[in-house]
Amino acid sequence: MKILGTVQETKQEIRAWKKAGLSVGLVPTMGFLHEGHLSLIQRAKKENDKVVVSIFVNPTQFGKGEDLESYPRDLEKDAQLCEAEGVDLIFHPTPEEMYPTGFHTYVNVETLSETLCGKSRPTHFRGVCTVVSKLFHIAAPDRAYFGQKDAQQLAIVKRMVRDLDFDVEVIGCPIIRESDGLAKSSRNTYLNEEQRRAATVLHRALLYGETLLRQGQRDVTQLEREIRAQIEKEPLAQIDYVQIVDALSMQPVPKVEEEILVALAVRIGNTRLIDNLMFTTEN
Amino acid sequence: MKILGTVQETKQEIRAWKKAGLSVGLVPTMGFLHEGHLSLIQRAKKENDKVVVSIFVNPTQFGKGEDLESYPRDLEKDAQLCEAEGVDLIFHPTPEEMYPTGFHTYVNVETLSETLCGKSRPTHFRGVCTVVSKLFHIAAPDRAYFGQKDAQQLAIVKRMVRDLDFDVEVIGCPIIRESDGLAKSSRNTYLNEEQRRAATVLHRALLYGETLLRQGQRDVTQLEREIRAQIEKEPLAQIDYVQIVDALSMQPVPKVEEEILVALAVRIGNTRLIDNLMFTTEN
Repeated sequence: MKILGTVQETKQEIRAWKKAGLSVGLVPTMGFLHEGHLSLIQRAKKENDKVVVSIFVNPTQFGKGEDLESYPRDLEKDAQLCEAEGVDLIFHPTPEEMYPTGFHTYVNVETLSETLCGKSRPTHFRGVCTVVSKLFHIAAPDRAYFGQKDAQQLAIVKRMVRDLDFDVEVIGCPIIRESDGLAKSSRNTYLNEEQRRAATVLHRALLYGETLLRQGQRDVTQLEREIRAQIEKEPLAQIDYVQIVDALSMQPVPKVEEEILVALAVRIGNTRLIDNLMFTTEN
Repeated sequence: MKILGTVQETKQEIRAWKKAGLSVGLVPTMGFLHEGHLSLIQRAKKENDKVVVSIFVNPTQFGKGEDLESYPRDLEKDAQLCEAEGVDLIFHPTPEEMYPTGFHTYVNVETLSETLCGKSRPTHFRGVCTVVSKLFHIAAPDRAYFGQKDAQQLAIVKRMVRDLDFDVEVIGCPIIRESDGLAKSSRNTYLNEEQRRAATVLHRALLYGETLLRQGQRDVTQLEREIRAQIEKEPLAQIDYVQIVDALSMQPVPKVEEEILVALAVRIGNTRLIDNLMFTTEN
């Protein structure tokens, strides 16, 4: 397994594979890999001749006052995990390599980026789309793998690929959870023991929402209110949003119809956690 | 020569060439081809195995009240000209093919897009960058050819390619002029006889500026004033801007140093014409 830090070397390596007719799967990450990332890598490994993992804590997707500096990093351990999974190449650039002096170009998916996380993180998805565009150009993947945990990100990247005619198949993979239901996230390491226990409220609230949906509740206001009430029972939890949106457009819906996303963002102490649930009505 | 209207057919055709190891040159146009376009096609023909010309009057680069509807179109004549030059494929999509329902993704080069033409046409270059990104993904060119007449567009596309790590070499080609100096442009057809004569003032003013530069004038304010005065002698001419900027950043400079661009936009009647001159100081 190679670890490369420059765009040029990485392009060169991957172009040689492509010339030889090999398919490439890309797993874009910010590192500090957990079982969620590993599930993406395993799927990529199954479906492609070569697997590239990018490890880059992307500054343009962090807002002012967010956790860019403190975001956990451990390249050595990440490399061991990738090696064990049979990854062929880790792309691990510096911020200066990705954003050289005079960098001025941004890719943005309007509308879809403005709801949910986009409300409290107004430039977040612009940063995501910009770095993902770059990674797609650098790694020229046939397939790229994203976790369903970041459901809005997945919907936005899919829309970007369709709108800009990228030659990449975007594949969403299921949320991987701890045994008590907490969605795996590199940010879970921020939680102390008490906060860690409190954090299970996100998944519990979603399960409660799912129960109501399965019982036939279709009123969005009512559902959101009930899910909020579940979260508010936890004293350490501060709700950023609880919202039901259309699964493709990420826009609020008045009524549960077709495929919807129940999305939530909750602060436990200073740590902002997200989780979600997809639900399709039977028709 | 094939004329294809869908993204999928065009990708399929070009992917087969790429698989066979053939290089592709792309000439993006809005059609109504003149000798300026033909010079780009001829250069592309020399440097690539296959040449693709896109003909698409791109709605996202027109502002409200601009000439989207009246922009001249003549696919039949364009096809004859392309055929005669040995073009392999014309990509001629509909607006609906390029911008399907729910299209929300835009590419923007900030800063460089905000000066010169970007001032009077604030969303113009965002439209250009978006459509050029799409064309690059569809045609997967090794090289793409743009005229130096649209100097700001060329600088912006080059920056976009660098910033987003596109695998395309962007090649700028010299301005082609009528015998009286007027830069070739599809919009010249809007001019009546009297306006057509008046339009030569753009090139005359640039030549006057060049004379002053060669005589050693380095004061930007002075140069801009002298060039404006030349244009103001023509009663049919209304200046949009006369500006000297850094040739790479498109930002105003206080003094002529290294490589600069003298850029101007002038209205003759309702027709907005642009022209420019690159100048490099000897050092």
